[in-house]
Amino acid sequence: MIAESMYELGTYRSSIRELFEYGRRIAAEAGPDKVFDFSLGNPSVPPPAAVTETLLSLLREEEPCALHGYTSAPGAAETRQAIADDLNRRFGACLSAGDLYLTCGAAASLCIVLRALTASPGNRFLVQAPYFPEYKVFTESMGGRLTVVPPRAPDLGLNLSATEALLTPDTQGVILNSPNNPSGVIYDETSLRALAALLTAKAREYGHPLYLISDEPYREITYGKNVPFLPALYPDTVICYSYSKSLSLPGERIGYIAVPPSAADAGRLYAAVCGAGRALGYVCAPALWQKMLTRCAGLTTDVGPYRKNRDLLYTELTAMGYECVNPDGAFYLLLRAPGGDAVAFSERAKTYRILLVPGNDFGCPGYLRLAYCVSPSRVEASLPAFRALISSLS
Amino acid sequence: MIAESMYELGTYRSSIRELFEYGRRIAAEAGPDKVFDFSLGNPSVPPPAAVTETLLSLLREEEPCALHGYTSAPGAAETRQAIADDLNRRFGACLSAGDLYLTCGAAASLCIVLRALTASPGNRFLVQAPYFPEYKVFTESMGGRLTVVPPRAPDLGLNLSATEALLTPDTQGVILNSPNNPSGVIYDETSLRALAALLTAKAREYGHPLYLISDEPYREITYGKNVPFLPALYPDTVICYSYSKSLSLPGERIGYIAVPPSAADAGRLYAAVCGAGRALGYVCAPALWQKMLTRCAGLTTDVGPYRKNRDLLYTELTAMGYECVNPDGAFYLLLRAPGGDAVAFSERAKTYRILLVPGNDFGCPGYLRLAYCVSPSRVEASLPAFRALISSLS
Repeated sequence: MIAESMYELGTYRSSIRELFEYGRRIAAEAGPDKVFDFSLGNPSVPPPAAVTETLLSLLREEEPCALHGYTSAPGAAETRQAIADDLNRRFGACLSAGDLYLTCGAAASLCIVLRALTASPGNRFLVQAPYFPEYKVFTESMGGRLTVVPPRAPDLGLNLSATEALLTPDTQGVILNSPNNPSGVIYDETSLRALAALLTAKAREYGHPLYLISDEPYREITYGKNVPFLPALYPDTVICYSYSKSLSLPGERIGYIAVPPSAADAGRLYAAVCGAGRALGYVCAPALWQKMLTRCAGLTTDVGPYRKNRDLLYTELTAMGYECVNPDGAFYLLLRAPGGDAVAFSERAKTYRILLVPGNDFGCPGYLRLAYCVSPSRVEASLPAFRALISSLS
Repeated sequence: MIAESMYELGTYRSSIRELFEYGRRIAAEAGPDKVFDFSLGNPSVPPPAAVTETLLSLLREEEPCALHGYTSAPGAAETRQAIADDLNRRFGACLSAGDLYLTCGAAASLCIVLRALTASPGNRFLVQAPYFPEYKVFTESMGGRLTVVPPRAPDLGLNLSATEALLTPDTQGVILNSPNNPSGVIYDETSLRALAALLTAKAREYGHPLYLISDEPYREITYGKNVPFLPALYPDTVICYSYSKSLSLPGERIGYIAVPPSAADAGRLYAAVCGAGRALGYVCAPALWQKMLTRCAGLTTDVGPYRKNRDLLYTELTAMGYECVNPDGAFYLLLRAPGGDAVAFSERAKTYRILLVPGNDFGCPGYLRLAYCVSPSRVEASLPAFRALISSLS
């Protein structure tokens, strides 16, 4: 009577959640300063002050029925125009309001695009490991299949040869996430151009477009390295965006899909995005948050504290003997598990009250994810525990 | 390359939307006072003042990272507790926080429940006409099939004999919407008890439960008649709720699913609801709105203006010779099309600048929906046009 696959999804707790709940228990029992919780990607820097001020002024000044009423399904025209203007200004894009579809965040953006692009059950999507584990849930629940491209050690960059080997005629798209969760790597322009050339050649060979689905909630969380704007490198790119991290609003569920007019079949794809949003029950993105974006689309939270954490962790951990790639962006760092067994090392770390998620679910066994979206003082306080942890191995 | 069914859903415009856009064009050309737009169910009464005050105080006083951060997937525990307390107080229910799952509104609630209950592709769900047309979209996109029980003229009550004839062993549930969109009818307790007895007998015959999926966004928009609390009449009831109408927040996307512990397989069903929410990309319901509900769960908007409209329209229109059922709740009224052809009558009404949606998409041909969630002065101003319209037929 009950959908078995949904029951399983609802009862299986991800390793991230599992560890997070463990951390909460420890914090409740022993005090929050007794655990170094690096399990969850929940922003620790507040939204820009202008976000709160805008919300206050909207609530005080706007007529409430208009403020909280339905917007059109793709979103309020003026919000979409504000976002298009911001992208055009910053990336030299040529987007208009009609190319944007506002969503309830990144997960909604991805589900909608995957549903729109799953023309037949079992259609394939590729993703480069390491990757965010929910991609597999979303792809499969929308009727497709996810093929994981193995990670390219040691730099965790794009694995082009493996991508080429794994592309098949029933592949509809490639999911790309840069800055990457969980590695913090930003794929460089040279690799991306090579990927674009590969996809262009394969699309010609297969006789149908191959879409690049760019999941970029961390686009603005960077520490100096440039994030190439993908539609400029590969026309058949669809952007999935969320303001969860760039404006520190993960619980508020606001983001967008951009289907650039240059993309193959852009008009039909945009219509299918609208259809998929409707089919999945997304009536419109939350109205108050849309109206906030009309005024705040170009803002970004202060990444200073994240950068401070990144610098401190990379310098100190590598000095202690840990191996990792220095993150270019996002607020994650992927550690190589000393000894090679990430699950065992995660358990050992728990005895030092350090919570690190094994990379297995990210398609990256032998690594552990460290989410450093915590206060810099917590990072500093954790260093002796990290030192004791690695010393315990020798 | 693009999912054809999604493309079609994205390009097919509903008759409601079509008429609404027509109304906007007329209003832009001739002025908003030149059109009597009864096409859309967008609340015209503002939210209770306490809703805005609560939002302002949350924004001023709460720590922003906590306020806007992820909640757990089913929603913040204290919000779910507040809603459970309110339902227990008003309806004598025995709900706890763990029986509730917060959603992004009624459409999300329905999609999630339908997905959780579609154990095999093509599983059947019944709905009593007249019904909200998106039910068909949601049921089919979640993998099921919708069977429409024909309306029972002239009172538009539950058609029990047709329901009995249409139930099949592959039926998983019956969708019920009371107060009803588009008729405004509240199904009375006697009929509901008879439906419960029928479902109990059929469930025994089939050897599996038959769930009642109660879509009740209009539960609080009533004019004196009681809305029976369904789990008290039939244990295998799942409630799909939205605050869109009761708090006049349709654009903000906040609602819930309640799986009462008395329902068959309640624990497994609740887990499948969590799984379906995850599979469809609903990470959590918007956090600020959740926190508002912790303080405002028991409030309802002022239904006075809707009642005034209902009284005026029913009295005046029936005096002019129109036929309709006097609505018990919601803010819709279903008119019998004079002459019998609703599409032709909707076109004729347009020449009098009155916008009425033909009932065909609601499974009720020969009727027209009048959404009276407009200001009472607009209703008053429309009466001469209604009089001229019906006179034009003789």
